[in-house]
Amino acid sequence: MASLNAVDDGDIDLAQRLADAAASVTRRYFRQDLGVEAKDDLTPVTIADREAESAIRELLAAERPGDGIVGEEHGNHNAEHDRVWVIDPIDGTKSFMTGRAIFGTLIALMVEGSPVLGVIDQPVQGERWVGAKGHPTLFNGQPATTRTCPSPAAAVVATTTPEMFKRATDRESFERLTAASAIQLYGGDCYLYGQLACGWLDLVVEAGMNLYDYAALAPVVTGAGGVISDWQGAPLTGRSDGRVLAAGDPACHETAIGLLSG
Amino acid sequence: MASLNAVDDGDIDLAQRLADAAASVTRRYFRQDLGVEAKDDLTPVTIADREAESAIRELLAAERPGDGIVGEEHGNHNAEHDRVWVIDPIDGTKSFMTGRAIFGTLIALMVEGSPVLGVIDQPVQGERWVGAKGHPTLFNGQPATTRTCPSPAAAVVATTTPEMFKRATDRESFERLTAASAIQLYGGDCYLYGQLACGWLDLVVEAGMNLYDYAALAPVVTGAGGVISDWQGAPLTGRSDGRVLAAGDPACHETAIGLLSG
Repeated sequence: MASLNAVDDGDIDLAQRLADAAASVTRRYFRQDLGVEAKDDLTPVTIADREAESAIRELLAAERPGDGIVGEEHGNHNAEHDRVWVIDPIDGTKSFMTGRAIFGTLIALMVEGSPVLGVIDQPVQGERWVGAKGHPTLFNGQPATTRTCPSPAAAVVATTTPEMFKRATDRESFERLTAASAIQLYGGDCYLYGQLACGWLDLVVEAGMNLYDYAALAPVVTGAGGVISDWQGAPLTGRSDGRVLAAGDPACHETAIGLLSG
Repeated sequence: MASLNAVDDGDIDLAQRLADAAASVTRRYFRQDLGVEAKDDLTPVTIADREAESAIRELLAAERPGDGIVGEEHGNHNAEHDRVWVIDPIDGTKSFMTGRAIFGTLIALMVEGSPVLGVIDQPVQGERWVGAKGHPTLFNGQPATTRTCPSPAAAVVATTTPEMFKRATDRESFERLTAASAIQLYGGDCYLYGQLACGWLDLVVEAGMNLYDYAALAPVVTGAGGVISDWQGAPLTGRSDGRVLAAGDPACHETAIGLLSG
């Protein structure tokens, strides 16, 4: 089965062309005055978001018409297929809408429920992480590796926003982990996982994430030598609960899981 | 007196050359593996930070030997002079040390205790804001203007980290303001004030800032049509208490001051 083997070069190439298609849209709209809609939860959704996802779906329809698609903006198509592309055209919409070039386009391929290929693309700075099962993670074409950091006590731990932890128990877990860590960094969305894959920070702890937020992150982190899981330490799948912990160093991951559990 | 008039072009030119001198250092060290020291409060201080400040001080010693200097890394020199250059070679050291190009070099000129000239420079992305009394704020050489946003209810409000609000009363003020705002953005340091000057976000609320953190921000925000003050609404000076509120729209500033006061 494909799921046991390395990801096919054709899929890796396609994932990058999907990111290119999104980039040509997002770059055009970045820092332009846009009408911005608000969803119920006030996440800003821009015209760029929808157009970028349409560009990705068009290419997928032409090249992989049988595959499933799960997208943030335009919903699901054949989502029960063995092969599903999971896309978030603009992850970090708050950064995008405030002119900050640390948002990202996320492209993932799930096979039998597990992410096997992921791209994190920052189109304005021209930065791209590509992770695929059986391949080393690449940052702008060069191998990326996480750094050694055996304990949270020496770690830089990052989180997009403390507002992610809506449940009191999640907030307590988060606070236990950050209190045990050396340095806390806020903001960043998917970009944080790229930083971790390059060995620039040590831990990312988040919650309330959707499949399209985390699917692409897993192969990038894993292929760079890191570990990414839910807060119980289980690998991320289509059925994960949206709590995510990533660590550059497997030893640090294990200790962090213990801290989250209390 | 100079303080009543527009800032001299020679000072504006010098401030930009000081930023250039720092940029040649910080760009060289960005994303390089460095030995990082920790101060007592765990702020990371890099070799780049110290070398960049030295480069700035060398140029100041040559061109304005009589002026005072206040710097984050190498202390004060003639700090009681009428004219004092206030410099922070790397504001946003956590972003710098984790490979995130939204840190900045801050250069300010204070005249008789008030900031009259400020530069926010992002050397990796090649972005620069220049604000000076009597001149419109420029972003990469083009005029920058804040946007209309009469009320916090419609505002994007930004803060580097909620850990800034160490006192319970400050934390309550912060939470009152963010609860009344539309969208909350975390992370960013000085870069947030540049975003505000360009009309990409509406409010920045922070605390625990030092003179070298805020002096350069004031002329940039003011020259773009915004308002920046302490939490009582008083202009920032060398004697401010480190609580800062910036708004793109003066009406929004007034309401936000009321929310902070409770």
